[in-house]
Amino acid sequence: MPANPDQVLANLRELAALTSDSNGAQRLAFTATWQKARDWFATKLRGLPVTRHLDAAGNAWVTLPGASPRSLVLGSHLDSVPNGGWLDGALGMVTALEVLTALASKYSAHNNRPPFTVRIVDWADEEGARFGRSLFGSSAFAGTHTIAADRDRTDSNGITLASALATCNVDIDRIGEATREQENIAAYLELHIEQGPVLERLGLPLAAVLGTKGVERHAITFHGQEAHSGSTPMLDRRDALAAAARLALEVRELTLRINAERHSDSVSTIGSLKTFPGIVTAIPGRVECTLDQRDLSPEILATLYREAVAASHRIAQEEGCIVEWSRIWSIDPIPFHPHLIHLCRASIAETLAAATRTEASQAKTTDAAPPAEQVLSIPSGPLHDAAEVARTGIPTTMMFVQSLHGISHNKIEDTTEAHLRLATKTLTWLATQS
Amino acid sequence: MPANPDQVLANLRELAALTSDSNGAQRLAFTATWQKARDWFATKLRGLPVTRHLDAAGNAWVTLPGASPRSLVLGSHLDSVPNGGWLDGALGMVTALEVLTALASKYSAHNNRPPFTVRIVDWADEEGARFGRSLFGSSAFAGTHTIAADRDRTDSNGITLASALATCNVDIDRIGEATREQENIAAYLELHIEQGPVLERLGLPLAAVLGTKGVERHAITFHGQEAHSGSTPMLDRRDALAAAARLALEVRELTLRINAERHSDSVSTIGSLKTFPGIVTAIPGRVECTLDQRDLSPEILATLYREAVAASHRIAQEEGCIVEWSRIWSIDPIPFHPHLIHLCRASIAETLAAATRTEASQAKTTDAAPPAEQVLSIPSGPLHDAAEVARTGIPTTMMFVQSLHGISHNKIEDTTEAHLRLATKTLTWLATQS
Repeated sequence: MPANPDQVLANLRELAALTSDSNGAQRLAFTATWQKARDWFATKLRGLPVTRHLDAAGNAWVTLPGASPRSLVLGSHLDSVPNGGWLDGALGMVTALEVLTALASKYSAHNNRPPFTVRIVDWADEEGARFGRSLFGSSAFAGTHTIAADRDRTDSNGITLASALATCNVDIDRIGEATREQENIAAYLELHIEQGPVLERLGLPLAAVLGTKGVERHAITFHGQEAHSGSTPMLDRRDALAAAARLALEVRELTLRINAERHSDSVSTIGSLKTFPGIVTAIPGRVECTLDQRDLSPEILATLYREAVAASHRIAQEEGCIVEWSRIWSIDPIPFHPHLIHLCRASIAETLAAATRTEASQAKTTDAAPPAEQVLSIPSGPLHDAAEVARTGIPTTMMFVQSLHGISHNKIEDTTEAHLRLATKTLTWLATQS
Repeated sequence: MPANPDQVLANLRELAALTSDSNGAQRLAFTATWQKARDWFATKLRGLPVTRHLDAAGNAWVTLPGASPRSLVLGSHLDSVPNGGWLDGALGMVTALEVLTALASKYSAHNNRPPFTVRIVDWADEEGARFGRSLFGSSAFAGTHTIAADRDRTDSNGITLASALATCNVDIDRIGEATREQENIAAYLELHIEQGPVLERLGLPLAAVLGTKGVERHAITFHGQEAHSGSTPMLDRRDALAAAARLALEVRELTLRINAERHSDSVSTIGSLKTFPGIVTAIPGRVECTLDQRDLSPEILATLYREAVAASHRIAQEEGCIVEWSRIWSIDPIPFHPHLIHLCRASIAETLAAATRTEASQAKTTDAAPPAEQVLSIPSGPLHDAAEVARTGIPTTMMFVQSLHGISHNKIEDTTEAHLRLATKTLTWLATQS
């Protein structure tokens, strides 16, 4: 029995109906609704020759034993942001389930086992929406999560991370033991919606993912001189907002210039800007803003950051202001595995060619799959659990399926049924090649 | 006995000591500290042939009867913002007291009355710092204050304007009766600190004031598309902050250009800017900002506003955003009286020439006062009670004395003693000319 795209669609709808309200998905990690989603997923394993267990960080593992203990892991997450979409995370879990079911069916029909072990992992708290710490479970698995910095986190109701974990039988002091799950993993694959507009703009259903971009995230403060809006002539001002506005535009320009020069697709975003005192009759004496810059190349990312800093100092001097930078967070770019990326592109090419052959069958033509090199591969701007897996050295890649309008983390998040079917077929193909 | 600048300085220090704390002046209108300042002022009238009364809006009037009921009014305010300076308002009151004392002394020495009546008015709640409605008393006097819109105002402790007024024996429903005080007023003069940097930059102690600038005050909202900072390429963005940043810079440019073309000193200020959702990982989907534009010419003010609106629509279109404007408040420019402005400039010229003669007396030279036309006259960006008086048709002007560093509404607000002395002498000269 091959993987059944209709079953994927049916399961996605069933999960959405069970764990969403009129505002969207509500599978916030370590809550009853999230637990309900996990329990639902476990019921879908009935009748399969698999085992299921939670690791020390609350990640849920399903194992279909093969002839070899070397395993292929298909992973994603069932948790969502508040008021989230129906596909973010859930698509990866439900397609993985369908691939596992198809493989189990294929081999059990011959009273056989797969040549390799196949596992599914449901990472705990990918979103970090409740406690502000994303990739919780996968970073524990990777051994990169130092709980010290996160031990005292609380949610909006004042519940501590430790007590939320305890309700899910996770001991906050033992999450590091999740690294034991790394044993015998040969490859890790993750299917996810793109959450961006690139595939839709290009008219493509699928892309292989080259890795996750590194991030430089900073708080920038301009200090000028607060003064009365009525009594201070234009040329006597030291306006912190004028300086910040110039920086916002110059950062955009320098990012576009670097992209043109380096054929890169770097992004720079000023997401928050606050004026102080922030009243209609006062020239802002202080502006605080945030800058988030991303690229897959460490060298280009360093250039982006360096040029933004230089621009800010030049602008501050020209505007009679002082500028201060403070790093909020950063992470290096994490490239995925070249051979797995190649296999992913080849699988996409094969699936698309098969679809074309089906359409063309009445016309009696036969086309071979196009070369994998013609299939789009792009870096991921958002981080994913796959990045934590890749940091352990386990060969890893991801596949993106088109998001409509590039919108995610919202109840209107969507992907066409045709593309969801193609994604299921491609993941199945890829899983049997890996 | 001529007006004594030393007494002005002593009184200013006495008032500051009585009504300030370590954070500055605390003479918030309709509070016990403000009442203490008014009681202190009343004690300074002892022995003078004057009467004192409160009008229906709580303005305090002191009258030195003259041979004619036609009166010259010297006005200012004893109230301050929280943590205010020692001169804002207080300087005008204390110098008016000294001028009145000198005139009373001059005429009583000859058992005579002044040829005209001289009055001092202490306007109630110029600052509006407690209830958010500035020029409370002077607008009631002018008949421009429709209490309906302000009746339900409360302070930060929830005390209503009506009950605060009642503690000062003011009936909120009768404030309109303060217009009766307009009778027989021939001229109104107000001395105030500049609260801006122009006089200090030009090295001048004093300036005549041409009027108060008109104000266009608007809320501007740019609507773009909220999107993930990591997954949305630079060229796919509709960034509301980029649009607002461009507007901030273009409004500055167009104001400078109009000032250069029209020899004006217009100001345009974006005092508040807020990003939504305002998080580090999201491209701002909405930005709300405020714009405050001022000029003394109605036609230039209209041009400023019209060009800002046009720029915002062009920028919004280029950035794929939508822009909305909403007027917060506006007021027409209020020009002061040409003859009084001329007299003010002549008085400044005379006082400065007299100071020069004193310095040069050992050198046996004598210089006449320079022409009044050589004395600086500037518009006021901030509003003042004088603007409300001018709206009634009463001939009005103001005189500004230099503010150090252009700073006001702050405990470090200051003016040199030499300039405070010159201001006292000039106001005395002007009061006897008017």
